[in-house]
Amino acid sequence: MTHETELRFTREDYARRLAKTKTAMQAAGLDLLVIVDPSNMNWLTGYDGWSFYVHQGLLVPIDDDPIWWGRGMDANGARLTTWLPDDRIIPYVDHYVMSTERHAMQDLARIVREQGWGSRRIGVEMENYYYTAKAHAVLAADLPDARLHDATALVNWQRAVKSEAELTCMRRAAAIVDAMHARIREIVEPGMRKNDLVAEIQRTAIAGTPDFGGDYAAIVPMVASGVEASAAHLTWTDKPMRADEGTFYEIAGCYQRYHVPLCRTVYLGKPPQHFLDAEKALQEGMAAGLEAARAGNTCEDVANAFFAVLRTHGIVKDSRTGYPIGVSYPPDWGERTMSLRPGDRTELEPNMTFHFMTGLWMDTWGLEITESLVIRDGAPEILCNTPRELVVKP
Amino acid sequence: MTHETELRFTREDYARRLAKTKTAMQAAGLDLLVIVDPSNMNWLTGYDGWSFYVHQGLLVPIDDDPIWWGRGMDANGARLTTWLPDDRIIPYVDHYVMSTERHAMQDLARIVREQGWGSRRIGVEMENYYYTAKAHAVLAADLPDARLHDATALVNWQRAVKSEAELTCMRRAAAIVDAMHARIREIVEPGMRKNDLVAEIQRTAIAGTPDFGGDYAAIVPMVASGVEASAAHLTWTDKPMRADEGTFYEIAGCYQRYHVPLCRTVYLGKPPQHFLDAEKALQEGMAAGLEAARAGNTCEDVANAFFAVLRTHGIVKDSRTGYPIGVSYPPDWGERTMSLRPGDRTELEPNMTFHFMTGLWMDTWGLEITESLVIRDGAPEILCNTPRELVVKP
Repeated sequence: MTHETELRFTREDYARRLAKTKTAMQAAGLDLLVIVDPSNMNWLTGYDGWSFYVHQGLLVPIDDDPIWWGRGMDANGARLTTWLPDDRIIPYVDHYVMSTERHAMQDLARIVREQGWGSRRIGVEMENYYYTAKAHAVLAADLPDARLHDATALVNWQRAVKSEAELTCMRRAAAIVDAMHARIREIVEPGMRKNDLVAEIQRTAIAGTPDFGGDYAAIVPMVASGVEASAAHLTWTDKPMRADEGTFYEIAGCYQRYHVPLCRTVYLGKPPQHFLDAEKALQEGMAAGLEAARAGNTCEDVANAFFAVLRTHGIVKDSRTGYPIGVSYPPDWGERTMSLRPGDRTELEPNMTFHFMTGLWMDTWGLEITESLVIRDGAPEILCNTPRELVVKP
Repeated sequence: MTHETELRFTREDYARRLAKTKTAMQAAGLDLLVIVDPSNMNWLTGYDGWSFYVHQGLLVPIDDDPIWWGRGMDANGARLTTWLPDDRIIPYVDHYVMSTERHAMQDLARIVREQGWGSRRIGVEMENYYYTAKAHAVLAADLPDARLHDATALVNWQRAVKSEAELTCMRRAAAIVDAMHARIREIVEPGMRKNDLVAEIQRTAIAGTPDFGGDYAAIVPMVASGVEASAAHLTWTDKPMRADEGTFYEIAGCYQRYHVPLCRTVYLGKPPQHFLDAEKALQEGMAAGLEAARAGNTCEDVANAFFAVLRTHGIVKDSRTGYPIGVSYPPDWGERTMSLRPGDRTELEPNMTFHFMTGLWMDTWGLEITESLVIRDGAPEILCNTPRELVVKP
């Protein structure tokens, strides 16, 4: 049986990522990591597949190569997508899936013990969708001699500064989301069912360009109109688009799991003055934020610059205004480390990548015009080419 | 500020669901539930939005109406989609999001204490994506007088038997997935980039029919060709479709969060004998399984009937062969209660709904031809109309 592996990055890339992770483990005093975040699994080994709805993980010992562990029917997926040799791919039998008597973490604990790692200092991702309360309880009970430590985001932090190969993926994702917004602008009109518009957005996202195809984004389009746009995370309905309403499109292009989100708002008709005023405030604030978004400054510098301008326009925003982006899987396309908000003093470094999420959600309406960017020593690279404006279709 | 709520089911439907849940709570000795599964939140209140990537939940006291709790920017989403009055919608401030100093569960614990529920017997969903190890640790620490019990799937079980209104949703989802398979059959050919095919599948899924639009499925299309089809959960690439290869399409139609999955396999060219043999075994096994899929029989009866036929053809399948379906959110479209597999003696009841997942993943290829069905006293209702066959395109 041969499974030809097609890696998305070079073996050297993966070796560098692993070395970086091990350095961080050492600094944290850990000699084994149990990684369940699918983004971290992908970044370290290339593993890709919609198998994260069952328990799976990556064991990363400080002194050896990682072990992929997952459901039996997914082992061939690991053979096809990772650089790991066959003897570092260990499947579990299907009777652990959706069982009330057994838990897959019992199997993982057994492997840890059999590898002689049963009394190690083990880092686990306590705050991750794929590490449930039950998973932790079972793993802790079955590894009585181990010391489990919270290693949430330890690997995520290693992903913050992108390589040139990663930036190439993100520029492709940016081209895809540009095409998505262009298509919206082209076809949206009153009377069109919203789901038909979203169907076309999703078709464009996956069709990509003639040179490269699109991947699925970690979040589906959030397309809220009128009063719905006062809520941040509604998706869509099959009701018709209406005249004299603003609709925001919170969408991302995705290329080989790398995401570039971009939001725009389209007003069908003549926008009321409060929309135009808010756009002006947002544009000025965005410009001030981008001015601050450079290496050497901090995350909060960007947010403070943006918020200060908003305040001069009488707008108080209290939610965070951006987050790092890159490889991701549902349910979140953020990298889950820094936040652009007051109090986050993380220093910006060249080739960090952010979604500057300048959305305004008011009591009965909302406006989103955002940018994704690459931090540089000077002005940031703006990843997308979509005009930065409130789109008005009369 | 007015937010006109549009409910997907009647107030009486929701009242029945809540009453059923409270009966189950009583039987389990619980006087408060903390529900985080988005499917359960939707089923009990109508809440819908892609906000589950941050902490949110539903507090269900045995002696009062539920409280929706979530991020500030999502409170309007709760006002727009649930039957809850404004004073049962309690948002938390944004500084709990992605913080390393604070955890949203501290806020939830405070609410529980302030409601006077701090020493109740509280059910939590220990085995759920949206109840992390950290969330549990924080909640337990901040509710020192409470007794936390595992109530995983307590609400899911109440969802097993569908109402007529729910079956209407599922028949619409079935019509959508029929349209998706018809479109695949129509356009797939060698040389077409696989992402272009998936783009068209997703467009069809969301466009739905002229009478009703489609919603997003909880899983993206899994479309694996040739040797990739030996792996169960790969998604797609931008490589061209190849002649003389089989490709399975594991997809679902979704209408207002109700899912109907359906898988078919398309062979481009003349299928080799082992494909035809496997199809024959699968078809016979499927027929035997459907014969056993009726009220009064058990989950394992269906699996045993299927596996017994497979064995006569020399095929041993050890994974579960189906699961209940209905309302769902990423990352899983299963209902996460029963399994069609040996050992599961749950009795089948009229209006339970299942995906009979008869996929075969071999060493170097795979075949999927499945059905979704409604349990009846006699023969089950087959939800879809897509021909049950290996599709051969020469």
